[in-house]
Amino acid sequence: MAHTTGAARAEILSIGDELLLGEIVDTNGPYMAERLVPLGLSVGHYQTCGDEMDEIVAAFKLALSRSDVVIATGGLGPTDDDLTMEAVAKVFGVPLEHREVVLDQMAARLKRPKDQLSGSNRKQALLPQGAHVLRNDWGTAPGVRYSTPDGKHVFLMAGVPREMKGIYGTWVLPFLKEHYTRGEAIEIRHLAAYCIPESRIGERLKDLMGHGNNPDVGTRVSGGCCVVRIVARALSKAAAETMLTPAVQRVREALQEGLYSEDDESLAEATGRLLIERKKTVALAESCTAGLATALLGGVPGISSVLLEGAVVYSNAAKTRTCGVHEATLAEHGAVSEQTARELAEGIRRRTGSDLGVSITGIAGPDGGTEEKPVGLFFVGLASAKGVQAHRFHYAGLDRNIFRERAANAAIDILRRAAHE
Amino acid sequence: MAHTTGAARAEILSIGDELLLGEIVDTNGPYMAERLVPLGLSVGHYQTCGDEMDEIVAAFKLALSRSDVVIATGGLGPTDDDLTMEAVAKVFGVPLEHREVVLDQMAARLKRPKDQLSGSNRKQALLPQGAHVLRNDWGTAPGVRYSTPDGKHVFLMAGVPREMKGIYGTWVLPFLKEHYTRGEAIEIRHLAAYCIPESRIGERLKDLMGHGNNPDVGTRVSGGCCVVRIVARALSKAAAETMLTPAVQRVREALQEGLYSEDDESLAEATGRLLIERKKTVALAESCTAGLATALLGGVPGISSVLLEGAVVYSNAAKTRTCGVHEATLAEHGAVSEQTARELAEGIRRRTGSDLGVSITGIAGPDGGTEEKPVGLFFVGLASAKGVQAHRFHYAGLDRNIFRERAANAAIDILRRAAHE
Repeated sequence: MAHTTGAARAEILSIGDELLLGEIVDTNGPYMAERLVPLGLSVGHYQTCGDEMDEIVAAFKLALSRSDVVIATGGLGPTDDDLTMEAVAKVFGVPLEHREVVLDQMAARLKRPKDQLSGSNRKQALLPQGAHVLRNDWGTAPGVRYSTPDGKHVFLMAGVPREMKGIYGTWVLPFLKEHYTRGEAIEIRHLAAYCIPESRIGERLKDLMGHGNNPDVGTRVSGGCCVVRIVARALSKAAAETMLTPAVQRVREALQEGLYSEDDESLAEATGRLLIERKKTVALAESCTAGLATALLGGVPGISSVLLEGAVVYSNAAKTRTCGVHEATLAEHGAVSEQTARELAEGIRRRTGSDLGVSITGIAGPDGGTEEKPVGLFFVGLASAKGVQAHRFHYAGLDRNIFRERAANAAIDILRRAAHE
Repeated sequence: MAHTTGAARAEILSIGDELLLGEIVDTNGPYMAERLVPLGLSVGHYQTCGDEMDEIVAAFKLALSRSDVVIATGGLGPTDDDLTMEAVAKVFGVPLEHREVVLDQMAARLKRPKDQLSGSNRKQALLPQGAHVLRNDWGTAPGVRYSTPDGKHVFLMAGVPREMKGIYGTWVLPFLKEHYTRGEAIEIRHLAAYCIPESRIGERLKDLMGHGNNPDVGTRVSGGCCVVRIVARALSKAAAETMLTPAVQRVREALQEGLYSEDDESLAEATGRLLIERKKTVALAESCTAGLATALLGGVPGISSVLLEGAVVYSNAAKTRTCGVHEATLAEHGAVSEQTARELAEGIRRRTGSDLGVSITGIAGPDGGTEEKPVGLFFVGLASAKGVQAHRFHYAGLDRNIFRERAANAAIDILRRAAHE
């Protein structure tokens, strides 16, 4: 075997002109890399190349010269500029061959007779001789594993993130886990908190975050949330869990009441799950976020049992019509005000009879700000049987859509804290 | 000169362990690449490597063996694992030398006397002999340009996006523009369509999509939409545009009425812009998509002038309360039915007085499907002064959130077509 356990090197290869043109940010590479680390694979390089045969061949040859596992995405589509299969066949000196099983899988997935598949679908059934098919239940391009006699493994997947994630999670990671973690147990936890700066968490956990520590602790940030990853390695699952326990406790203390999940969930998923578990019904009235908070909660399976209604009330007329905001309140304090946030939350709760009513009103920009009420200002209202409250936030310098996501998450976090009560 | 005008190749190199661990998505590469294309530089490769001397040296050597311009970010910080300057000095066989001008710039920016700069700041004044300093007004690590006798250029910048953007826009792009745009013009168009399979577009445009064509045509897919990119190169802007015209016309014909934008917009952006331009007001009633269609439209600046109200009506009670759906309709046909979609669209239009009323009702799953009404079934209702209609869709085999995005886009596309009328 070319690798020793824990020292195997992986390399990620992204293929497509649209990446080189800067039209797409490659999120596949980081997604895949993050999931390789806990398996003990060290990711040494990413490469990105365009849809040109010579470049793709050269990229695979370079990757195979220095890595044990090569994971490539892109260039598996049905059009003539999709060259990855052909390139890999060239690299290994094997012909492309037709694989009927791919057409069977496509026909089954598309619920269409095989003879009605298009010519370009048929092109996708041409795979390098000796390749293992990784069934694609999320799109038409099959994934492929090609293993060499000297124990290297090449994986090919579609570049569409949904398809990559499906094939990667179902076929690639289990294979790699089986091959590269023998004799070692790895336990991983993700603890996530809203709105605590990464630098503050880093300070609190400094002693756990040194290089080569076991358990190994790292942080990443996304959408105003900070995720702490703890990885413990030991000779048995029980030993790894024993090592994990004190580290998890330290991280819990560092995150305090900002902690919303120990299960690698998003803030909306954790909040939705909590609402469903506690059977707390909720209704939302959104202005500047235009339904984003409701839509984020709507992504949680089963949420329809507790999410009674959402109202997107941009206009003053809608605020009055649907949530009963007083015209005098709007005239005196404006639509973006603590008072309006309170009346919106109370109004949507009263309208629907929900346990909790949540509102968001603010200025997403780019226009519409004033000195007194700048772009980035927003209020979150919360109404419950205990009464109504409003919180003021100001997230300056964000673009419109980043701001909307942050504001929606701020409201969801307030809802989460209320659901705990 | 190693390059001929218009054929110069650029390569982007990102340096840092955090990238390989998947903790950070590299947005620098696409940002820089997108701005190189209009200068006539063709970006042939991205490379990402970690904070290891041998790897960085190897990455620069590889890049210089195949590219005329190498743009690197990362590894310029003050700590011991920041090795980029030293690596570049090794690559070119020159010593690092102290550059007092860097300390002058740092002291001026930090408004601090030079003798109070820290040792780690002083480390950042060590640059490869012969390098040109690119002043960093956005952070401490200076940028560098190193030009070789055979006309290649290497740029080094901090990896922090704000610092990279400052140095790149102020020093790097102007230099490259001066050197590489003489004599050639590049024109680019993006045409986007909803719901036409990429394979069908590929078949219709087969003759335009061959390699090395000019204009060059390529496709990419996202969220049920297909974007066709056309790039023309010629000796003048006018000549490039003349070349573009027939290709654009061919692509328009291939995309037919699915074409929603010629301006690199998302479907929601194109639809929102159209609604704003035509002053057509809209209100939405969403069930299975839980506000996602409204939230997508809400991302468009200025949409508040036409988006009157959105209602997330999961429960039957909300459907009746807010949209006036008859209880008899719900009892007889069910919430997921053509009849309910029609009444929801009519109801939200009547409630708000909008020009257009749109509704979505369906089964997002994973549970709740039956044989007659499977997961993935949904109806889109459209009400206008002309009357009301409903469209039936079935997108099987998608996960909940992908399904919701596709269903929201299906409704937005129907709204777009209605806005055209």
